[in-house]
Amino acid sequence: MKNPSRRDFLRQASQAGLSTAAISLGRGTFEGAIAAPAAAPQEVADEATSKPLGYAVVGIGAIAIGQVMPALAETKLSRLTGLVSGHPEKARHFARIYSVPEKNIYNYESYDQIASNPEIDVVYIALPNSMHPEYSIRGAHAGKHVLSEKPMCATVKDAEEMIAACRQAKRRLMIAYRLRYEPNNVASIQLCREKQLGALKMIDAEFAFVIGDPKQWRLNKQLAGGGSLMDIGIYCLQAARSLAGEEPASVYAQMWSSDPVKFAQVEENIAFMLKFPGGVLANCYSSYGEDGVDRYRAAGPGGWVEMDPAYGYSGLIQRVYRNGKTTVTQPTGGGQFAAEIDAFSDAINHDRDVLTPGEEGLRDMKILMACYESANMGKPIALS
Amino acid sequence: MKNPSRRDFLRQASQAGLSTAAISLGRGTFEGAIAAPAAAPQEVADEATSKPLGYAVVGIGAIAIGQVMPALAETKLSRLTGLVSGHPEKARHFARIYSVPEKNIYNYESYDQIASNPEIDVVYIALPNSMHPEYSIRGAHAGKHVLSEKPMCATVKDAEEMIAACRQAKRRLMIAYRLRYEPNNVASIQLCREKQLGALKMIDAEFAFVIGDPKQWRLNKQLAGGGSLMDIGIYCLQAARSLAGEEPASVYAQMWSSDPVKFAQVEENIAFMLKFPGGVLANCYSSYGEDGVDRYRAAGPGGWVEMDPAYGYSGLIQRVYRNGKTTVTQPTGGGQFAAEIDAFSDAINHDRDVLTPGEEGLRDMKILMACYESANMGKPIALS
Repeated sequence: MKNPSRRDFLRQASQAGLSTAAISLGRGTFEGAIAAPAAAPQEVADEATSKPLGYAVVGIGAIAIGQVMPALAETKLSRLTGLVSGHPEKARHFARIYSVPEKNIYNYESYDQIASNPEIDVVYIALPNSMHPEYSIRGAHAGKHVLSEKPMCATVKDAEEMIAACRQAKRRLMIAYRLRYEPNNVASIQLCREKQLGALKMIDAEFAFVIGDPKQWRLNKQLAGGGSLMDIGIYCLQAARSLAGEEPASVYAQMWSSDPVKFAQVEENIAFMLKFPGGVLANCYSSYGEDGVDRYRAAGPGGWVEMDPAYGYSGLIQRVYRNGKTTVTQPTGGGQFAAEIDAFSDAINHDRDVLTPGEEGLRDMKILMACYESANMGKPIALS
Repeated sequence: MKNPSRRDFLRQASQAGLSTAAISLGRGTFEGAIAAPAAAPQEVADEATSKPLGYAVVGIGAIAIGQVMPALAETKLSRLTGLVSGHPEKARHFARIYSVPEKNIYNYESYDQIASNPEIDVVYIALPNSMHPEYSIRGAHAGKHVLSEKPMCATVKDAEEMIAACRQAKRRLMIAYRLRYEPNNVASIQLCREKQLGALKMIDAEFAFVIGDPKQWRLNKQLAGGGSLMDIGIYCLQAARSLAGEEPASVYAQMWSSDPVKFAQVEENIAFMLKFPGGVLANCYSSYGEDGVDRYRAAGPGGWVEMDPAYGYSGLIQRVYRNGKTTVTQPTGGGQFAAEIDAFSDAINHDRDVLTPGEEGLRDMKILMACYESANMGKPIALS
């Protein structure tokens, strides 16, 4: 690391409970740096050749096994150095596979002891939704930066507490919105932001799959916080907000379920309509009861951009229609999780803003909760 | 015609103002035949080899010139035998092209004289929306069957009056929902009705183009009755209703326009959400401000069926996704207008119900008006 003193200082400051105002570094306070635009000038030389940041994965479930841990084997600025799990055998199994030292395996009781482990810089929270806050906050208290899976949590209050805890601990908080780091999706957002299709009029976004095991945590309200909206509708919301380039002014939603036993606690289906102040409307839906729906499109007078598939882990295809012709762009580059993780490490290394900080997750949480409120009240809800 | 006496009798009865109850024919009254299911057994032998029914096209605008008159040159059960226009030169020009006798050209004043012209059996109303009622009703009063372009008219009251007038005159009334006679669309509807995708959860339907000439009748509320919803949103509504196979229970809509001068009278954009009692929700939108948007999709646990393009005059492509595979069906067969027109002639010839009678147009009119009411009130509207 070319700038270890800053990181060490920040950690010490955090652990000492120093206030934000007390920490003035470089071009402003640490807090100021968080709030600065993402395009802030690079102040520190490239550290790609430096020692990667160490990540501890918290929760060894499907996403950790299938995506996060394999991604950490291909990242350049990040590497897997720790595991936190309630299943010691499972933890040891993956520790062997990924060459994680056994001393860097923690369980949920010993988790806070990562504070004294210098090989762990970041915790990647891959637990069920409602557990993100506790393990993010304990991670921040232990002096670690926090990368939390989406949705950020299950309530607005939890999101605010996660942000406050990381801010107080002077640690970074990023939400794992992997698609914001996926090249075709990034290009689609840029196309819209640059008004290459003229002023957008409409966006539509749909994401659905048929959910399997009725006992999984996604169907448990206590753990998931909600149904298809929290799990996959959030991608449609992210697409709509990022393509529109502004915050929605209101939402109207309807939700329902076809199977009262399987969906006793959370919604199967939800449709939501977002109105943006600049004149764009987004028609979105998510469902746990449809096979193979994975798409968005933004359209304006100059044509449209479509992603289909739009939200999967790989192979996301972009189609752009302009002047009567459709251009298809196949995906390029590496994995989404690796790109997302290295973006976080890069931001930490250079004291730069992250593209998807806790505040971005909080914005989504407020809108998701407004969707539920609208569906429950049967009327549109204004968003502040 | 194998059954001229019936047609002659009906016309005479109509002209004599006989009541419905007074006319008992075959398996029931004429009114009963209208209300009977579409799958009523064929009682009359095939008449494909008989003399085609004569159609007078009322209004020689873009759709008549580009679609209806050319279609009447390829129909088997129907032929162009009359023209009604306010532009005598234009009428004579097209009469020469399509071999229509000059004596069968009428203007809007002489229109009622078609009553005494036995070469004209049907009037095809191809005028701006708000003129459909007057010319449909005058056509029925003249003893002619009526095929009206969509939208049926501009108000629910007008729709009811059109139906009443045709019923009183014992003439058939059909609305020109050409897509209901297009093979790929028909197959898509059948696929859904047969639950080949399981119980549908969601439908999304979008139709948009960039409207040109700001002085055209489509932007004039007096003539069009409304904006993109009346003109093209109606296709999304038709798709949603026919794919769902039932009537929506409620609608929520939002509308807005980007250009207050061009769209001073009618809406540019409208999004509407239809909830069906059986558990399907449809997210729809129409716009006069987007290029190249022309699609619908219905999805369930077994996969989805998509049409894209879905609403154009030709080349409508069906994609069906099931068991991880997508099957693409290219369009086959002749033109949509020819199929629609011959379907009407066939129904007239055989005293069969038409698939898209006035009552079908009325159902759409009620929902379209509820869309506007919802958008104006800012709340969902229950549909009776």
